[in-house]
Amino acid sequence: MGAFCLAYGEKSKMATCINDEGGYEMATMERQKLVEALKAKAQLLRIHSVRATTQAGSGHPTTCLSAADIVATLFFHAFRYDVPNPENRLNDRFVLSKGHAAPLLYAAWAEAGAIPVEHLMTLRRIDSELEGHPTPRFKWAEVATGSLGQGLSIAAGMAFAAKMDGLPSRVYALLGDGEVAEGSVWEAVAFASFYRLDNLTAIVDVNRLGQSGPTMVQHNLETYARRFEAFGWQPIIVDGHDFGQLLDAFDRAKTVKGKPTVLLARTLKGKGVSFLEDKEGWHGRPLPKDLAEKALAELALTDEQMELARLLKVKPPANGAPELPILPDDWHTRIEFPRYELGQQVATREAYGDGLVAIGKVNPLVVALDGDVKNSTFSEKFLAAFPERFVECFIAEQNMVGVAVGLATRGKIPFVSSFACFLMRAYDFIRMAGIGTTNIKLCGSHAGVSIGEDGPSQMGLEDLAAMRAIPRSIVLYPCDAVSTVKLVAEMAKSRGIAYLRTTRPKTTVIYRNEEEFPVGGCKVLFQSADDVATVVAAGITVHEALKAYEVLATQGIKIRVIDLYSVKPLDEATLVRCGLETNRLLITVEDHYPEGGIGEAVASAVCKEGIRVHKLAVHDIPRSGKPEELMEMFGISANAIVQGVKRLVRQESHGR
Amino acid sequence: MGAFCLAYGEKSKMATCINDEGGYEMATMERQKLVEALKAKAQLLRIHSVRATTQAGSGHPTTCLSAADIVATLFFHAFRYDVPNPENRLNDRFVLSKGHAAPLLYAAWAEAGAIPVEHLMTLRRIDSELEGHPTPRFKWAEVATGSLGQGLSIAAGMAFAAKMDGLPSRVYALLGDGEVAEGSVWEAVAFASFYRLDNLTAIVDVNRLGQSGPTMVQHNLETYARRFEAFGWQPIIVDGHDFGQLLDAFDRAKTVKGKPTVLLARTLKGKGVSFLEDKEGWHGRPLPKDLAEKALAELALTDEQMELARLLKVKPPANGAPELPILPDDWHTRIEFPRYELGQQVATREAYGDGLVAIGKVNPLVVALDGDVKNSTFSEKFLAAFPERFVECFIAEQNMVGVAVGLATRGKIPFVSSFACFLMRAYDFIRMAGIGTTNIKLCGSHAGVSIGEDGPSQMGLEDLAAMRAIPRSIVLYPCDAVSTVKLVAEMAKSRGIAYLRTTRPKTTVIYRNEEEFPVGGCKVLFQSADDVATVVAAGITVHEALKAYEVLATQGIKIRVIDLYSVKPLDEATLVRCGLETNRLLITVEDHYPEGGIGEAVASAVCKEGIRVHKLAVHDIPRSGKPEELMEMFGISANAIVQGVKRLVRQESHGR
Repeated sequence: MGAFCLAYGEKSKMATCINDEGGYEMATMERQKLVEALKAKAQLLRIHSVRATTQAGSGHPTTCLSAADIVATLFFHAFRYDVPNPENRLNDRFVLSKGHAAPLLYAAWAEAGAIPVEHLMTLRRIDSELEGHPTPRFKWAEVATGSLGQGLSIAAGMAFAAKMDGLPSRVYALLGDGEVAEGSVWEAVAFASFYRLDNLTAIVDVNRLGQSGPTMVQHNLETYARRFEAFGWQPIIVDGHDFGQLLDAFDRAKTVKGKPTVLLARTLKGKGVSFLEDKEGWHGRPLPKDLAEKALAELALTDEQMELARLLKVKPPANGAPELPILPDDWHTRIEFPRYELGQQVATREAYGDGLVAIGKVNPLVVALDGDVKNSTFSEKFLAAFPERFVECFIAEQNMVGVAVGLATRGKIPFVSSFACFLMRAYDFIRMAGIGTTNIKLCGSHAGVSIGEDGPSQMGLEDLAAMRAIPRSIVLYPCDAVSTVKLVAEMAKSRGIAYLRTTRPKTTVIYRNEEEFPVGGCKVLFQSADDVATVVAAGITVHEALKAYEVLATQGIKIRVIDLYSVKPLDEATLVRCGLETNRLLITVEDHYPEGGIGEAVASAVCKEGIRVHKLAVHDIPRSGKPEELMEMFGISANAIVQGVKRLVRQESHGR
Repeated sequence: MGAFCLAYGEKSKMATCINDEGGYEMATMERQKLVEALKAKAQLLRIHSVRATTQAGSGHPTTCLSAADIVATLFFHAFRYDVPNPENRLNDRFVLSKGHAAPLLYAAWAEAGAIPVEHLMTLRRIDSELEGHPTPRFKWAEVATGSLGQGLSIAAGMAFAAKMDGLPSRVYALLGDGEVAEGSVWEAVAFASFYRLDNLTAIVDVNRLGQSGPTMVQHNLETYARRFEAFGWQPIIVDGHDFGQLLDAFDRAKTVKGKPTVLLARTLKGKGVSFLEDKEGWHGRPLPKDLAEKALAELALTDEQMELARLLKVKPPANGAPELPILPDDWHTRIEFPRYELGQQVATREAYGDGLVAIGKVNPLVVALDGDVKNSTFSEKFLAAFPERFVECFIAEQNMVGVAVGLATRGKIPFVSSFACFLMRAYDFIRMAGIGTTNIKLCGSHAGVSIGEDGPSQMGLEDLAAMRAIPRSIVLYPCDAVSTVKLVAEMAKSRGIAYLRTTRPKTTVIYRNEEEFPVGGCKVLFQSADDVATVVAAGITVHEALKAYEVLATQGIKIRVIDLYSVKPLDEATLVRCGLETNRLLITVEDHYPEGGIGEAVASAVCKEGIRVHKLAVHDIPRSGKPEELMEMFGISANAIVQGVKRLVRQESHGR
């Protein structure tokens, strides 16, 4: 029976080996055979990793060698996964947080049967999905990793999703020891214990060596254990090259209730190759051909070992996931939008909450996350309506975005809210989510100097620049409640990263409830054949532009006014048309720094047509004060627009 | 003697009260009097906080009330500070990490004699330096706080600087309990224990309530203690409203050797005002006038208490700081720059290391920080030359930038290096450093797709957008070794935030060693009267533009080529002149996403003159591959420039 027992793929034999808790009930001899098989499998993973990186001429073989035994045990013992179907809801999940061990990841999936082993040799080639660090172009990766310290948050999000959905699947995240210095790891650790994610297991590959030297904690496993334990986790210290310990640890992790588990695995970087083991200076260096040969000779398997390794399969998950809620494609046609009166005073941040509730009612996949500012962002409205779909992430924005990424991989549509400036805390997470083409929605409130007295630390003034620079992102900036709720729905309908910028003070409702706001559009609010210039505004400055329009009109000066609610993509055609119709002159006005915001977006879009763009933007470090005082002081008020238009038109008539 | 003993300002009497360790040797009665005085002083701080926020009509009084007893004890017992002279090197330092308690900070400094008490009523006014959250416009604040979780890193930097300089001063940081959820706090905690910063004391004001609800840990002080202890700190749990415990704790903190100390103070939000104490729903809300009257009635002091409070003064530091190294203003004229040969292949990241060593030799204030990539950024050259001025910050970029901010407040010139993309991890720290007009220098290496096979997670492609959007920042991007070392010197000479972008692959030295590279300039590398367009490049793309120039020249097409090494400030005059001289046509080419980078900077600068700008930039999510393949695939290669020029000139000649 021994050999069969190892072949986990064969379901009929499984029950005799594994009890319900995943613990072993086999004879010592059988376990010994399993250990030998895993040992052989791990060597294969090492061989693939060395070969592929040498072939590529770059990469991180030594970090693969340290984690190979862990990954072999995880994949070919602990893991439950329907290999051909990554989308199977019952699958366990694996996040390689130490993304530079990508060759090991690909090797494990190749040995699992996901891809041909030969394909591993395409590593890092421009025509291969086997990138230097994993991205979802490799479909078993699900998320992009490689910026260290992000994987545990993502895994926590996946584990949270499994709990929400009543799924039995477990989530595993493999971390390097160096990355445990990232604070985001401790945000995730705190989050996972607070929410008692006992379906989450982290493994730290404690190989002692970072890129440029030893880590802070080196091989003091007890120190790590104390830290994780103090944060409410169950730590298990193991020799990461002892399969007996690894098997026991993974089994035990499945039995721990009410808290997440961390396997702290003492390993050696370069393990298995005598001249690499525990040596500095080998991080991120492939072996040259001659040394690779030497290494492969050390790693070589006997035929018998090869045979044993071949017996190991990834075990499929049990059947019987809870039914998915049925969501018709046209779900969004059933949204009952909240209605506002023209002229009503409503803050767009408050309308965000209204919009979120409206879409939440017809789309059960919508979830909301907030970082202890839900009463400012108004995501608290969603909490009140759907408490089971709201995730309080406390003041830890990086983890919040990571959790959202994890939720998105499990089919949720996560809306993440905080002050615009505090979302910048998670910029690297957002960057990675962009690379992973993740479906997350962000709302940054309290944008701009218009927040007033709280001062510059609370003012998002660089968020448009940062969010526009995420590839394929959508960036939206409504000026009133009607456009806000419509844009929230557009975000939910869209795929990928979408960002909504909201404003603290109340603004006047200027649109009728029937108005539509497609992504990539804009609204021309006033136009005539006599317009001397086009003023392009968005958000709070739309109202300043409208005031400027009135003032200039009384002086006989007509301007065109555009509400650029979709900052990215940009309605280039309308901007160009208006520019050409109004003396080739556009004036942008934005509650944002001059760099990377609306002015630059517009200039860059239209100036190839020879249209001139003048920017009004927050031109220096702001300060505390009343909103209207600040908008005046930093040159984005109605008055500033009036003065700007008059000055530019005067220059114009003087032939420049 | 009792009364005199409390008047710490009077040096002659001090010695009898305080022993060398700061511990008390006074009779019980005297201590009782001190407690009564501190109690009165704390009530005064409460009164000022309530009054100022009610007058301002906004602000966070309840968080001031919870921490008032802590701050009173800190300022008027533990602190050693020469109040009129914040620059005094011997002063202790205080960082208000929970920046929303700004009214309490201002109240403490007013009671310390730094500003008139009446001035507190200008809180949050546009003409006042007493902003809603502290900025260095209030000169006793030194740094901007208000984005939570940053103060401890800054304080650790200050404490590190004191150790470097052999100064006896201590550093105190006051944190809110909510912000302890920020991972950056745990980065700072790990850093401070690793470097044994026993001159650092953190105080956590554990008032249980965040902005929108209870914190994760609430009043479980033991949980916090276990966490800090596991990270190598000495925790001391106190009742934050018991002056006896506070006095003992601050005294004890001074005696702990080899590790930092944290006072975990159990407090009540709103303490001292019956209807606010431990109540939810009061975060960030000033009291309306009537409730303020009620609160002030509860807080009112007797004449005797006022008298006692008046006796308390901030105690000055001891004399005798080590001498400052003498640094003449013209230090930079003595830099011996490394010399390179024209045509030599040198990566700009390597030249960064060379340049850093060159300025380090003549300027002892220069220090370098790196996040475990020193062998990639080449800051390791500085480490080799000046080990005592190098700070390994491990993989914790937020804390690294925070430590740099702390070092900068103590007069150092910190150069912080990591991969460009990983500096984005610290974007919110950089944002706050910008608001604080801090003198830090950042180097982001491995920018762009030209890094090649490691793939998008390691490519900085949004860093120019992000760094340009920091107010008053300088953004530099050299294309060869000579310009790199010169620009490193320019960074050191400049004040404020400067960012240098370096490249992974080697590039050809194109400048002579004598060439100068002033901030705000650019280099016109080729020009003629026949130029059909100007190509604006920077960094790696300069070399592509030069190749394109050669190719086009063989086809009889002349282009102008600009090296835009100073991305911000921009040499607008030269760009406009070249644009006007070359058919009003500029083509920008950059190894960066299209948003917020060189193309938009240039378009925005010149398009008000009717000059057309076409952008070549990395137009989608890149991938792993060879650098040259990627530059081709994403449209920023020499070939792409050649095609772009020909297409645009053809359009031109067809009358567009």
